[in-house]
Amino acid sequence: MRFATVRHDGTTRAARVEDDHYVVLDHADVGELLRSGDGGHVHGPAVDRATADLAPLITHPGKIVCVGVNYRDHIEEMGRDVPPAPTYFAKFRQALIGAHDDIALPDPATSTSIDWEAELAVIIGTELRHASSADALAAIAGYTVLNDVSVRDYQRRTTQFLAGKTFESMTPLGPELVTRDELGDGSGLAIRCEIDGVVKQESNTSELVFNAVDIVADLSTIITLEPGDVIATGTPGGVGAARTPPEWMMDGTVVRTMIDGIGECQNVCRNQVRG
Amino acid sequence: MRFATVRHDGTTRAARVEDDHYVVLDHADVGELLRSGDGGHVHGPAVDRATADLAPLITHPGKIVCVGVNYRDHIEEMGRDVPPAPTYFAKFRQALIGAHDDIALPDPATSTSIDWEAELAVIIGTELRHASSADALAAIAGYTVLNDVSVRDYQRRTTQFLAGKTFESMTPLGPELVTRDELGDGSGLAIRCEIDGVVKQESNTSELVFNAVDIVADLSTIITLEPGDVIATGTPGGVGAARTPPEWMMDGTVVRTMIDGIGECQNVCRNQVRG
Repeated sequence: MRFATVRHDGTTRAARVEDDHYVVLDHADVGELLRSGDGGHVHGPAVDRATADLAPLITHPGKIVCVGVNYRDHIEEMGRDVPPAPTYFAKFRQALIGAHDDIALPDPATSTSIDWEAELAVIIGTELRHASSADALAAIAGYTVLNDVSVRDYQRRTTQFLAGKTFESMTPLGPELVTRDELGDGSGLAIRCEIDGVVKQESNTSELVFNAVDIVADLSTIITLEPGDVIATGTPGGVGAARTPPEWMMDGTVVRTMIDGIGECQNVCRNQVRG
Repeated sequence: MRFATVRHDGTTRAARVEDDHYVVLDHADVGELLRSGDGGHVHGPAVDRATADLAPLITHPGKIVCVGVNYRDHIEEMGRDVPPAPTYFAKFRQALIGAHDDIALPDPATSTSIDWEAELAVIIGTELRHASSADALAAIAGYTVLNDVSVRDYQRRTTQFLAGKTFESMTPLGPELVTRDELGDGSGLAIRCEIDGVVKQESNTSELVFNAVDIVADLSTIITLEPGDVIATGTPGGVGAARTPPEWMMDGTVVRTMIDGIGECQNVCRNQVRG
């Protein structure tokens, strides 16, 4: 099954995919749908799938955990070592945007080193703590696409990545949740990022150092995972910062972030006009 | 004024301090009180202040931002350099406990390197983005005490601190919010951590490299701050990891985290029995 979060009648609503349309549900987003424990099988208004206005798939996640340095080719291009455990950092909710929303560039005086990072995102479906691998897999509701758009100079101004990773309205999340019964542990999926029509990242989720199950089980040793939690699993090689010369996104840049079997986010970078 | 969040009739409630008692309010916690924009002046049931059961001061913060390496003596003892900007990492909500709750030690097979970090915490009172220093100060609701209890081997297993900083039920937050009109920019406050009655950390918030206003203004460049957001400003020298030999907390260790003009958290470390 597939679910999305659509903007509908001035608010957001979870929606179930039925062929070419969405069936709008009562829940405010896919996170609330997952927390409710109901299957989203009821009837509701229909919205055309091709033209729907998509909100971030999870509008108010309890947590957003990102994994860094988790594809071997990306580790090599960034000059890092393969870490002994998953490298975690966070984002906050206000970073998220929908699958077709504009990416809000920071003021150029703040930063112009804006980079792309195509990622497979795991969405948690049931509460989990101290989990085995089997329990970890069972707690995964499904998968979606995330672009961990990064403000590289802020990421690198101290030892900790958070500042460069949680800029407001820069992280596309969507378009849809594809449930685990269709994608298993999320391995074997082609992942790609195109910038203005040119392929910049092209890999496969089987190249992850720590896969979705490894990450979920390890995180559950640290803290309780809850329905609607978002875990971004890391990005493959081909980011702009690792190119010679480095390549950055700017006003008008079109970013397509694609995972086979899930779908894509397509977002345009836009300078902001501050009132 | 002072506010707390108390456990009351099987739920949590914000409460106003009146001398030796709390006046219980309708809001679920101090975060909800701040988001409501009401002053918390109404009447309500009275609870004895000395024996009240304190919940985390903010039970569901939209974000918890921590600042690392922000006191000169701690930077020196950890062998780090003074960073050019605040070093940010996150915690998640489930890390928080009340001012007198037990600290839930991880399974000893997971880690035994449990350390203390007394910190001044800033609580945001109004929404804020792209703020000047004056606006940043005005957006601070007040201050409280936080102990950024750290699982050092998890903090150090990769480059990113998050894993060692967000373990479940290890971060005391409280006892009370002291509003900004009493404490200004939060400087000039003596801060101390005692372990089993022995002073381990003793400094003053005037020793912060980046003070509360610097941090709030800088963060607002990155993302919108909201009422109830928690910002932990960093810890002074004297942590267990920097001692020879290193000192760790264990089952039964009593931690007192004190800031003059605010109050203290007193917490006991306890091994967990997993069912």
